[in-house]
Amino acid sequence: MILTVTPNTALDITYRVRSLRPHTAHRVTEVTERPGGKGLNVARVLAALGHEVTVTGFTGGVTGRALRDQLADTPGVVDALIPVAGATRRTIAVVDTTTGDSTQLNEPGPEITPGEWAAFQEAYGVLLRSASAVALCGSLPPGVPVGAYAGLIKAARSAGVPVLLDTSGEPLRRGVAARPDLVKPNADELAELTGSHDPSRATQDARRRGARAIVASLGPQGLLALTPEGRWHATPPDREHGNPTGAGDSAVAGLLSGLVEQLPWPERLTRAVALSAATVQAPAAGEFDRAAYEKLLARVSVTAA
Amino acid sequence: MILTVTPNTALDITYRVRSLRPHTAHRVTEVTERPGGKGLNVARVLAALGHEVTVTGFTGGVTGRALRDQLADTPGVVDALIPVAGATRRTIAVVDTTTGDSTQLNEPGPEITPGEWAAFQEAYGVLLRSASAVALCGSLPPGVPVGAYAGLIKAARSAGVPVLLDTSGEPLRRGVAARPDLVKPNADELAELTGSHDPSRATQDARRRGARAIVASLGPQGLLALTPEGRWHATPPDREHGNPTGAGDSAVAGLLSGLVEQLPWPERLTRAVALSAATVQAPAAGEFDRAAYEKLLARVSVTAA
Repeated sequence: MILTVTPNTALDITYRVRSLRPHTAHRVTEVTERPGGKGLNVARVLAALGHEVTVTGFTGGVTGRALRDQLADTPGVVDALIPVAGATRRTIAVVDTTTGDSTQLNEPGPEITPGEWAAFQEAYGVLLRSASAVALCGSLPPGVPVGAYAGLIKAARSAGVPVLLDTSGEPLRRGVAARPDLVKPNADELAELTGSHDPSRATQDARRRGARAIVASLGPQGLLALTPEGRWHATPPDREHGNPTGAGDSAVAGLLSGLVEQLPWPERLTRAVALSAATVQAPAAGEFDRAAYEKLLARVSVTAA
Repeated sequence: MILTVTPNTALDITYRVRSLRPHTAHRVTEVTERPGGKGLNVARVLAALGHEVTVTGFTGGVTGRALRDQLADTPGVVDALIPVAGATRRTIAVVDTTTGDSTQLNEPGPEITPGEWAAFQEAYGVLLRSASAVALCGSLPPGVPVGAYAGLIKAARSAGVPVLLDTSGEPLRRGVAARPDLVKPNADELAELTGSHDPSRATQDARRRGARAIVASLGPQGLLALTPEGRWHATPPDREHGNPTGAGDSAVAGLLSGLVEQLPWPERLTRAVALSAATVQAPAAGEFDRAAYEKLLARVSVTAA
């Protein structure tokens, strides 16, 4: 199976309002909820592609119960989340129905105790034994050491399991130094890591810092990949209109599925770009449009960069 | 006991953010939750004043479970909420830490089925037998007939239980026609009911429509009461600075407690104004500051109007 790790899982709530105006009252016309946090989004896409996926990380409180209830209804995703005393955070996206613009409110997440962190590390070690690949995804909740991902990368490497890292800030900086097989920063995260806003220069710098391969997501400009096998730029056929929420997570799912299927890099990148664009096009945030995905596969351009 | 009815209970969530800016992402720095909906707020204040209170209405889903868990920790309040299949709504207040201004996001509430509404009416009839007064509070969730409060008022009158109505719009209009003992509209609700923005004229009109007594809450200008025993204007000593959330609910609690203690109207109004002002002064939204309340009791002015 493919293992995804989401230390700071979330109950993603979407509110529709006519138009958000600060310091007034709003009637919410539509409420939707789904399990969230990057690794859970990645797992849902992997399962839809037919992979066996196990999710781990922390969950607790009534929000955690709601998340697990909904996860139980997601075919193909195995729940190996670690229960904690604190409550899983909510993230709220307030979407203006008049314009489609969205405003995000993100709770910080529960405080993880040293005992809970130790229980997670033990469970992670056991899960690695049956994993074909592992993805470490998103922010760290309070209480988890900032070098957590570096430790989890070392454990995966010792177990011979390829490891992908998708995070930001100091956890990314320390994680890269632990030599993950692949990192997938977006343009901002890459610039923060390397100090360079030139993606070509910045990906080279990130490799020097320890990452075996880098795939930078450049929004509508697609993906820039720097790998031991070569360097490519993969772009979608059109500028997609829609909701970019989850597009990066779909790209991670595409890269992971290509990795475990041992596809050549250009095919992995094609899959990642097509999934990402099909997510932007989907009506619901973070889902992907399967018909659009299958059409896009033939239309993604991959060129040596 | 005093019975409060909250058909559309809520899990009240308060988020603190630096400053709400539409179409950007916000890190929530503090999250607080408490059982909400007007009747639950009224019950909490009544319990703090030493009254036995029972709350009923609808509750369901994981938000309903969270609400009931927290209610169980509120001394003096008995939970007689009716479980429903839908989920209790959330209401979110986003407070800017820089200015104290707040933005409200209100979910619509669960759809109530005819069977659930029938179960509620039966339970309400039983609860009335041991009630010294009943308050009908707030909005109606989807599925509850718009004339619901009118029916509940008639049932209370048949049972000989004094009934207070605190709602708005069509449920208020129909409720007033069913001849409640007391209605407590705010200035906007009163104007919507009567078409008049002159509180003196509007309270007279509301009495003609059927209410035995009217107490209109006029924000910082206090309360205007029109009753069979006379007509009074009760005002707080100072213009209060703070958060007015829950001030109206505290006024309802003051009026109800004065009613069951059979206090003369001026004393009931004094209590209601002092509780309301002490709620505006309290640091947490919807709580009241007991020391401030006790000081305010001597300083509220009540004049014949």
